[in-house]
Amino acid sequence: MSSWIDGRPADALSVKDRGLAYGDGLFETIAVRSGWPSLFERHLQRLELGCQRLGMAFDREQVVDESSRFAGQLGEGVMKLILTRGDGQRGYAPPADAQPCRILQGSPTPTYPPAHAEDGVRLFACRTRLAQQPLLAGLKHLNRLEQVLARGEWQDGEHAEGLMCDTDDRVIEAVYSNLFLVREGRLLTADLSRCGVAGVMRAELLDQADKLGVVTDIRDLALSELASADEVFVCNSVYGIWPVIGHERLSWPVGPLTRKLQGIARALLDI
Amino acid sequence: MSSWIDGRPADALSVKDRGLAYGDGLFETIAVRSGWPSLFERHLQRLELGCQRLGMAFDREQVVDESSRFAGQLGEGVMKLILTRGDGQRGYAPPADAQPCRILQGSPTPTYPPAHAEDGVRLFACRTRLAQQPLLAGLKHLNRLEQVLARGEWQDGEHAEGLMCDTDDRVIEAVYSNLFLVREGRLLTADLSRCGVAGVMRAELLDQADKLGVVTDIRDLALSELASADEVFVCNSVYGIWPVIGHERLSWPVGPLTRKLQGIARALLDI
Repeated sequence: MSSWIDGRPADALSVKDRGLAYGDGLFETIAVRSGWPSLFERHLQRLELGCQRLGMAFDREQVVDESSRFAGQLGEGVMKLILTRGDGQRGYAPPADAQPCRILQGSPTPTYPPAHAEDGVRLFACRTRLAQQPLLAGLKHLNRLEQVLARGEWQDGEHAEGLMCDTDDRVIEAVYSNLFLVREGRLLTADLSRCGVAGVMRAELLDQADKLGVVTDIRDLALSELASADEVFVCNSVYGIWPVIGHERLSWPVGPLTRKLQGIARALLDI
Repeated sequence: MSSWIDGRPADALSVKDRGLAYGDGLFETIAVRSGWPSLFERHLQRLELGCQRLGMAFDREQVVDESSRFAGQLGEGVMKLILTRGDGQRGYAPPADAQPCRILQGSPTPTYPPAHAEDGVRLFACRTRLAQQPLLAGLKHLNRLEQVLARGEWQDGEHAEGLMCDTDDRVIEAVYSNLFLVREGRLLTADLSRCGVAGVMRAELLDQADKLGVVTDIRDLALSELASADEVFVCNSVYGIWPVIGHERLSWPVGPLTRKLQGIARALLDI
């Protein structure tokens, strides 16, 4: 598939780029429909917040311009936008005059089994725990070895996603999705101030739930709370929502709030 | 400076490489003298251990062959060897048939002020804490945002290095060095089973101390233990040893064991 670097077609990046050397950068994975990046403003907001936290320059206008043009050419699919701190000399010190590098990559819309969305999925119990680093928590940065290790734990087709806890056994997220519980009509999701990726779809669904008058609760979640959930689902900004119907010995029905929000996510993503 | 990818001169890497996408790889920074990689066997051992832990293939013969030839051409300087998991499709799952990518980069020997080695250095007190992730601890992997943040905390020339603690305020290491304390003739350094990079020079010095009959102790170090240290030094495989003479309100003399080990490190690195 096509890729651009700094606004021009290119498929190779300088070996001196700090994105490679240190994972010194951020990325967004954006669904594109009819040439239009879905949930674009939320992706941009997260990217901008990430740049602030990493002390990287963010030229919003340039990113919007290039991404919009790239999405227009892609038409349908997934656009990955990587922003690195750019080329660097040897050494960790971020250069004061660093020129961030913008990488855009297009790929076809992933073809997940339709049953994932219709009937729900089972979660693998990942043994890989998320380390607690408040300075990086929430960001979609390029340091993703924990997710690589976690996703490498299962190969079977039985599990569509994996549940990840932090090193204190709190429930945090899934490997490439955020996790929600529904209990007594309330929508619960993990506090991500110590670890985890604050997903764009997660943020959108929290807003949508507010609009529906559903009480939302962002807080620490103990693993034991899964047992008392009425509904469980995972979400991301590419597939929308998958109901979760099983995890180890636990099982849940596909519930009404899950279906309601799934419909909204589908409409937003045009899927 | 020159760079090779997979054994051939090249200065650009596929944008699909998982080293860029996820920091999915490892690196070694190796001093080269008269065309010879210093402490080469130890660098190779750490790389091999890292590959085992990340589930990456390691073709030792190929890495040795390419690195040796590259070092021969470089002559004098620093050779950075990056091993990534190679190209990948979208998604965290490590491809079963992944072909690791080998990147070699040469740069001149860094010119540190001679006073660092002679008179000693002061350490900046980094606020960035190291998260605790036993699955990745000790490895020199490509997920180095913590070091980037820590090294970005000071710009003054007064501090040559920065002291890093973990999220429980244990003393772990410096930003691009390991840290040793000497107390009552014993050599102490932090246990790195939860976080930190297990440096090649650290391993070498522990062995050398054994040979000198110096008792070595690898264990958790409380920040308060710095106050009772007789000598403190930092080390890495490029500059050898720098005595530490100050950190916040504490100060230390340049002691005899530091000088003894510094001489050994100099001889090993031919500096």
